[in-house]
Amino acid sequence: MAENPAAIRFGITGCADIARKVARAIKLAPNATLYAIASRSIDKAKKFAADSGLSGAVKIYGSYDQLLDDPCVDAVYMPLPTSLHLHWSVLAARKKKHLLLEKPTALDVGELDRILEACESNGVQFMDGSMWLHHPRTAKLKDLVSDPKLFGQIDIIRSTSTMPGTQDFLESNIRVNPNLDALGALGDIGWYCIGAILWAKDYKLPTVVNALPDVLKNSAGVILSCSASIHWEPADKTVATIHFSFLSHSSMDLAMTGSNGSMHCNDYIIPYQENSASFDFTSGATFVELHSGWDAKPGEVTVISELPQEALMVQEFARNAEDIRKFGKRPDSKWPEISRKTQLVLDAVKKSIDLGCKPVKL
Amino acid sequence: MAENPAAIRFGITGCADIARKVARAIKLAPNATLYAIASRSIDKAKKFAADSGLSGAVKIYGSYDQLLDDPCVDAVYMPLPTSLHLHWSVLAARKKKHLLLEKPTALDVGELDRILEACESNGVQFMDGSMWLHHPRTAKLKDLVSDPKLFGQIDIIRSTSTMPGTQDFLESNIRVNPNLDALGALGDIGWYCIGAILWAKDYKLPTVVNALPDVLKNSAGVILSCSASIHWEPADKTVATIHFSFLSHSSMDLAMTGSNGSMHCNDYIIPYQENSASFDFTSGATFVELHSGWDAKPGEVTVISELPQEALMVQEFARNAEDIRKFGKRPDSKWPEISRKTQLVLDAVKKSIDLGCKPVKL
Repeated sequence: MAENPAAIRFGITGCADIARKVARAIKLAPNATLYAIASRSIDKAKKFAADSGLSGAVKIYGSYDQLLDDPCVDAVYMPLPTSLHLHWSVLAARKKKHLLLEKPTALDVGELDRILEACESNGVQFMDGSMWLHHPRTAKLKDLVSDPKLFGQIDIIRSTSTMPGTQDFLESNIRVNPNLDALGALGDIGWYCIGAILWAKDYKLPTVVNALPDVLKNSAGVILSCSASIHWEPADKTVATIHFSFLSHSSMDLAMTGSNGSMHCNDYIIPYQENSASFDFTSGATFVELHSGWDAKPGEVTVISELPQEALMVQEFARNAEDIRKFGKRPDSKWPEISRKTQLVLDAVKKSIDLGCKPVKL
Repeated sequence: MAENPAAIRFGITGCADIARKVARAIKLAPNATLYAIASRSIDKAKKFAADSGLSGAVKIYGSYDQLLDDPCVDAVYMPLPTSLHLHWSVLAARKKKHLLLEKPTALDVGELDRILEACESNGVQFMDGSMWLHHPRTAKLKDLVSDPKLFGQIDIIRSTSTMPGTQDFLESNIRVNPNLDALGALGDIGWYCIGAILWAKDYKLPTVVNALPDVLKNSAGVILSCSASIHWEPADKTVATIHFSFLSHSSMDLAMTGSNGSMHCNDYIIPYQENSASFDFTSGATFVELHSGWDAKPGEVTVISELPQEALMVQEFARNAEDIRKFGKRPDSKWPEISRKTQLVLDAVKKSIDLGCKPVKL
């Protein structure tokens, strides 16, 4: 069935919009193939297959259980509402399926730990669906901001993730439904802001998180908009601020200032264009005579990507799965560790909000 | 003496580096002329005149008193250390000199009120030295972010003002000397961050200011680096964050996200180039099919400036002085009001720092 018979065979449980994007990514990734899709309704699954132009060879299931019971499925991409993650993720792991889980990974780190334990004990790879981490621009950015001469120590990191929700979205979308995605904007897009801060700090956990006043919620109490500040132990002087909102114009800003340089990227989650992405970087800039201007404008660094970032994510995930299947390797612990730290900080932001914007220690 | 006999005759009290920039600005402004300079030492004043290539016609005084006593001086530009502002500003106002006062205007709003009262009762114009407010780019920015369709309500504002201080600067520069500029980085560059936030909010005063942890001070207790969040009354959902530091690479970021648009300007205090300045603006951007990119990249808006922003500042100030002299107008209350609000918020940030980063109500 697959063009590449050694390719990792994916099943997708759930027909959310994002599943169409990942279905395409699976098709683009050279070491992956889309083997099956499942919805709670066979009609919905058939419509998804037709709308997405899937090959007639892709199996279509009317229940998640059927897909998970199919021994030919190597890996599952799971874009279900967050409240369903625990049940279906643990089941997938027990069925020995590698698990690519859409973010937020769980309602809290307690749930996530149960998912990770299931993956660990069943020897399957876990990864969350943070696509931007797999873009080559992200690696280039890391190279530059890690250079002690060019960038130096990180003084401030600011990340945003905002999008304008329609009235309909804000009242009834899955992502603001307390029974389905109870973390609201914090889980859906705050995940990126927190992930970017942790990424910038090489996943060093902060010690204090503080939601800022003016948290907005919908009538069901689900978070729609929030800012927070993030701090590390006293000897670490980095200050990070995040802002995520379903009520603002689209923004995906990641800006960092170090002792020797600064960086601005305003599309870090989804690049403006699919095949190339840029950011601005400046190092050692100073002012000309009389401070009438700067001696250097920020340089634009552009990175070409032959595959979309979501296909690179699938490729990396499938590579891990291949390593396990072919070479008997252990699952790569990097990916669950990243997810767990992100969820830990997310939980702390949630707790700070619940306490009325009080500082929360991690 | 002046090329334009009707030009406002400026005296400069103090030979700080910034005075050279403003001396040039006075020469460039068509309605201003540099009439005199003063230092506490006549030798220092002479050296300044020579280094700045001033015309031999410019009077040189060895004391500020002498300059203020000269009846031909219409207006004074005062770049003295902050702790000297109260004394010399009040004296200048009593001598009927219009006062262009370098920022921070005073050590606290109590001092500033005494300066403003002296200017008011003597009928002279007051303005602080925030040059960026006079750049035509700033007006263009305001036009765009005030447009309800293009930008909508302001959700978040972030401003930074950072510069890398050398070890020598951090230990002994006037701007970190507790006896001269006791407000340190807060007064010197935090002034811009706060001013930008107030400017963005049309000078609506916030209700709460909260310094964030990780305030850094030098051995004398003077602030070197700080972040803070700024909030308005509960019905106003704007959140603003500021970051100012003498310990980071140069940055001057002003970023705003509204309900319908977003704006980024990374050189708002001193444009990269003197004769033209830009910012990025996006409105109504959304994602293309499968969220594989955006439907619009930010547009770069460029504004030409025929005069440097500091010359435009001098020109505006001299215009106010002319209006008073020629037409008997009252001083323009806009400028002292802007300064006073900036100082009020600055005082609140200082108080929050002094309280150990507790929220402070205004």
